[in-house]
Amino acid sequence: MSIFSHKNIEETYKQISSKILRTPLVMSEYINNITKAKVYFKLENLQSTGSFKLRGAINKISLLNSDDKKKGVVAYSSGNHAQAVAYASRINKINAKIIMPQTAPLIKINNTKMFGANVILYDPSKESRELMGLKIAKDEGRILIKPYDDYDIIAGQGTVGLEIAEDLFKKNIKPDIYLCCCGGGGLIAGSATYLKHFFPNIKCYSVEPNNFNDTQLSLEKNKIVSVPNNAKSICDALLATQPGEITFSINRKILEGGLSVSDDDVKKTIIFLSENLKIIAEPGGAVAAAALLNNKLEVSNKTIVVMISGGNIDNNFFANIVKS
Amino acid sequence: MSIFSHKNIEETYKQISSKILRTPLVMSEYINNITKAKVYFKLENLQSTGSFKLRGAINKISLLNSDDKKKGVVAYSSGNHAQAVAYASRINKINAKIIMPQTAPLIKINNTKMFGANVILYDPSKESRELMGLKIAKDEGRILIKPYDDYDIIAGQGTVGLEIAEDLFKKNIKPDIYLCCCGGGGLIAGSATYLKHFFPNIKCYSVEPNNFNDTQLSLEKNKIVSVPNNAKSICDALLATQPGEITFSINRKILEGGLSVSDDDVKKTIIFLSENLKIIAEPGGAVAAAALLNNKLEVSNKTIVVMISGGNIDNNFFANIVKS
Repeated sequence: MSIFSHKNIEETYKQISSKILRTPLVMSEYINNITKAKVYFKLENLQSTGSFKLRGAINKISLLNSDDKKKGVVAYSSGNHAQAVAYASRINKINAKIIMPQTAPLIKINNTKMFGANVILYDPSKESRELMGLKIAKDEGRILIKPYDDYDIIAGQGTVGLEIAEDLFKKNIKPDIYLCCCGGGGLIAGSATYLKHFFPNIKCYSVEPNNFNDTQLSLEKNKIVSVPNNAKSICDALLATQPGEITFSINRKILEGGLSVSDDDVKKTIIFLSENLKIIAEPGGAVAAAALLNNKLEVSNKTIVVMISGGNIDNNFFANIVKS
Repeated sequence: MSIFSHKNIEETYKQISSKILRTPLVMSEYINNITKAKVYFKLENLQSTGSFKLRGAINKISLLNSDDKKKGVVAYSSGNHAQAVAYASRINKINAKIIMPQTAPLIKINNTKMFGANVILYDPSKESRELMGLKIAKDEGRILIKPYDDYDIIAGQGTVGLEIAEDLFKKNIKPDIYLCCCGGGGLIAGSATYLKHFFPNIKCYSVEPNNFNDTQLSLEKNKIVSVPNNAKSICDALLATQPGEITFSINRKILEGGLSVSDDDVKKTIIFLSENLKIIAEPGGAVAAAALLNNKLEVSNKTIVVMISGGNIDNNFFANIVKS
């Protein structure tokens, strides 16, 4: 695809809107008061399968031709893409094999199995999920459903931006800032493409965990930069160590810059969101809110859209954060 | 008011809609599958102040004349009405005194104080909040803002029914069943009035904690019945021991019947909702979902609207449920 634009996202939305949940854009007076800003939260944690990932997966899988559908699919994922591919495969009656790290949250592994996928666990300290995925795709003739570096996936994730824009149009509101989590960069590439087209003055920022801020660093250097792969973070959904080639080719043009947050910022934010928005956000789903609430940028008197991208957190992990 | 109808609610909505959050109506494919039904959840836990109570309180307080506004208000509440009156008073620049049980969840007491109200704690095993409220109203010349037995409050709470109906119209869906929590009965009286007008075949059920099922019993006997006031339940928002006179005069005409659930049902439902809808519901806010998930009525192939009325739960209490 030589030119990727808001039109691809609009076309995609026509195809997938009946298969996904239109998620709400909500506001809290209390959060507006403490941030001295107008903050809209897009609740993709309420999406079917518990994260935005369904949008891209359902688009990609629906577009497979009937021969490819018969071959079945394979995907690798720390969990949200896994559940999304499993769910999208089930409703398309496609056989799915999913490679997941054995360290993934139980809720993600269990849900992926519940949706009928064949789950293969691997040891992320010893094995490469990309190589495993390619090998299975080759040996078994399956179609590999990449997690982010694919225009159909990016267009699917981008539909979240279309919904945000529609809701803001209705309220006659022009946003100043968009804060969105970033792993491989598919969600922000798609959604910021849409928002930037209709709100040219909006400033879009990727938000990553401190030690996985490869997009932040890549934006600063204006080229793809990797971070070491031996770092740790509780944000299991955002552990990509370098931006995707396609996603970065988009993001370098439309993002204002990158931000990053600590695991402690994220833990406090998960608790804060449960108390003040009454929602469950997973660590990776809370980083954009964490950037806002920990003053990673100046927001006074601005209108801000904050992405809450997922809610697949083990309840025990949540309870432990509360008790710690 | 001799005739209370959907028109009162429409008039009220015009007055208050800019001051409240329009809350989302969401669906989960997974929950549809396990219940074999189509279930829409109205997320009033996302409402400002964390519960539907703001709708009634903001309506009542906005309607006070300027003399009454100068006198200030007093209210008694286990916590959600307290926060709502405090919040509505603050934005109307009115002095508020709120009587709360010392056993109320900390989050509710703290938020009520944060909104600027003067909080008076009482011992519910020894003192009557109604008498305390009346005395303060008389001694200090304050206006008493009742929690439910007031047409302006009921019309305010009823606006949640208007939003549900609008969302269902858009999807061209006719609901078969409406499940709504019931304390004093204001929320269900208002919202069911609206829904029943536009969907005459809908069957509306109140849902209460097992030992506080006064509306269920009253509906069965077709007259106001009380339950003993020494029972216990974790559903702190639903501990009314008899229906209101006004609310019951409405509910007896439009409700199909009453259901009740155990504290254990409610605890399991709070966890279930956090895992599957990614939301925080408080015990009283989860009873309608608990009735659905514990098969308190036959729902196969039906379209059901379930009210999630509030989310003000102490995080420690939530963590303890998870760990238990």
